[in-house]
Amino acid sequence: MKGLAAMLLCFFLLLVAPPSASSSSRKSSKYPKPCNQFVLYYHDILFGRTRNILSNSTSYRITNATNLGNYQFGSLIVFDDPITKDENLRSPPVATAQGLYVYDMRSDYSTLFAFSLIFNSTERKGTLNILGSDPLGPPSRDLSVVGGTGDFFMARGIVTFTTEAIESIEYFRLKMDFKLYECY
Amino acid sequence: MKGLAAMLLCFFLLLVAPPSASSSSRKSSKYPKPCNQFVLYYHDILFGRTRNILSNSTSYRITNATNLGNYQFGSLIVFDDPITKDENLRSPPVATAQGLYVYDMRSDYSTLFAFSLIFNSTERKGTLNILGSDPLGPPSRDLSVVGGTGDFFMARGIVTFTTEAIESIEYFRLKMDFKLYECY
Amino acid sequence: MKGLAAMLLCFFLLLVAPPSASSSSRKSSKYPKPCNQFVLYYHDILFGRTRNILSNSTSYRITNATNLGNYQFGSLIVFDDPITKDENLRSPPVATAQGLYVYDMRSDYSTLFAFSLIFNSTERKGTLNILGSDPLGPPSRDLSVVGGTGDFFMARGIVTFTTEAIESIEYFRLKMDFKLYECY
Repeated sequence: MKGLAAMLLCFFLLLVAPPSASSSSRKSSKYPKPCNQFVLYYHDILFGRTRNILSNSTSYRITNATNLGNYQFGSLIVFDDPITKDENLRSPPVATAQGLYVYDMRSDYSTLFAFSLIFNSTERKGTLNILGSDPLGPPSRDLSVVGGTGDFFMARGIVTFTTEAIESIEYFRLKMDFKLYECY
Repeated sequence: MKGLAAMLLCFFLLLVAPPSASSSSRKSSKYPKPCNQFVLYYHDILFGRTRNILSNSTSYRITNATNLGNYQFGSLIVFDDPITKDENLRSPPVATAQGLYVYDMRSDYSTLFAFSLIFNSTERKGTLNILGSDPLGPPSRDLSVVGGTGDFFMARGIVTFTTEAIESIEYFRLKMDFKLYECY
Repeated sequence: MKGLAAMLLCFFLLLVAPPSASSSSRKSSKYPKPCNQFVLYYHDILFGRTRNILSNSTSYRITNATNLGNYQFGSLIVFDDPITKDENLRSPPVATAQGLYVYDMRSDYSTLFAFSLIFNSTERKGTLNILGSDPLGPPSRDLSVVGGTGDFFMARGIVTFTTEAIESIEYFRLKMDFKLYECY
């Protein structure tokens, strides 16, 4: 009968033990399923000397690059950038991205972004607030969606930036792949 | 008599049936109940040429507006602003708001706020950290409370800004309606 | 003998059951247990006139202090600072901290930090995004970890700053004690 007790104990241990996650399955489903997911495109037309005129520009450098390194370190750009559903800059914007980015790397191009993505259409109203690093080296970069309001009430998640086009230093387009993991 | 029974049944069903959510009632209970809620007032006295003297000022423009649009685009203001429980600027502050806002809209006045609300009284100690967009057009605007410390340990929520007073460009008062939905 | 098995089971249940938190012990352990905790050191070498040369510097003042108060109000510093596991500035960095801080207090030294802590080693890859106030008066200060990516996917928590060394105004070292309370 001691054997029975031991068996019961073993059985119980099996019940309370966490399922052993196999290495492969964990890798393929490393992250939970998003509760909301969508792709948008960000267009930045920096006012500058060579090409853009003010009426076309959507962003402006408000502090000059310093002489620390050769990658625009210290240059702070304020933007009011159109957001489209497809890659075409001329498509009707579905949102605007307003905020700033600042070059903050000595040995390569990289920026910190802090901005609000503002939706104000019949389809969606509200904001997503974003903070994170955008190094230009890697093909894709993850930033944090740290909060949301309106239709995105209390949202949290990740937005993945992929640079799709750079034309001189004065236009670039980002693909923004939003994955929200906390939705209300 | 069957008709009477049916009528009674119908009447009863109407009584116990859940009220069909009218569009208005759904709006009033769209969000969960906050775990913490309070109202505070924010006073900003911008140092400028026309009126304010340094000893009175609580904020300072550290970069000038650019010529992109006509709405102070690119102007970055650093603030150390008193927070009161009522609308009176002269009331003893219960907290301070320290951080920055930057004008970031080409076609109207709008700012991105990034700041910390710092409580250091016998009643409350700790901080709330806030990121979000504050367009001046709409009567009220929602920003994200993205974190908290001390008495607001790990808090998240929404703060609704309402502009209560603007006196020239150098004083404004915001009503800040805090609703925290994540508390520990 | 069934009684023995039941007793063993009960005994086992007591072993695996969470300890009932007495009111006093709850107070002494006011906060939940972190799901991830580690200590890192932050080194900031501000480029300036007196000592640091550009090749050594890791941060740069991009706007000058205003004349509001005597505590560098309005001075905005962009940094790309090495992060080490021990206190030695010469130790191989395990991460970099990239972003900005701005002096935002009229009556004492205090800064708002907004930055990304970037890990890119074989051990850890990913970022932690941080927003919060760092007043220099108190011995330790709490800032919010508002999001994370990669190995820190969707993390939230608190980072406690302690100033460990200040050499003139151009070098300081912070101990950063990370406690994450939300992990995925």
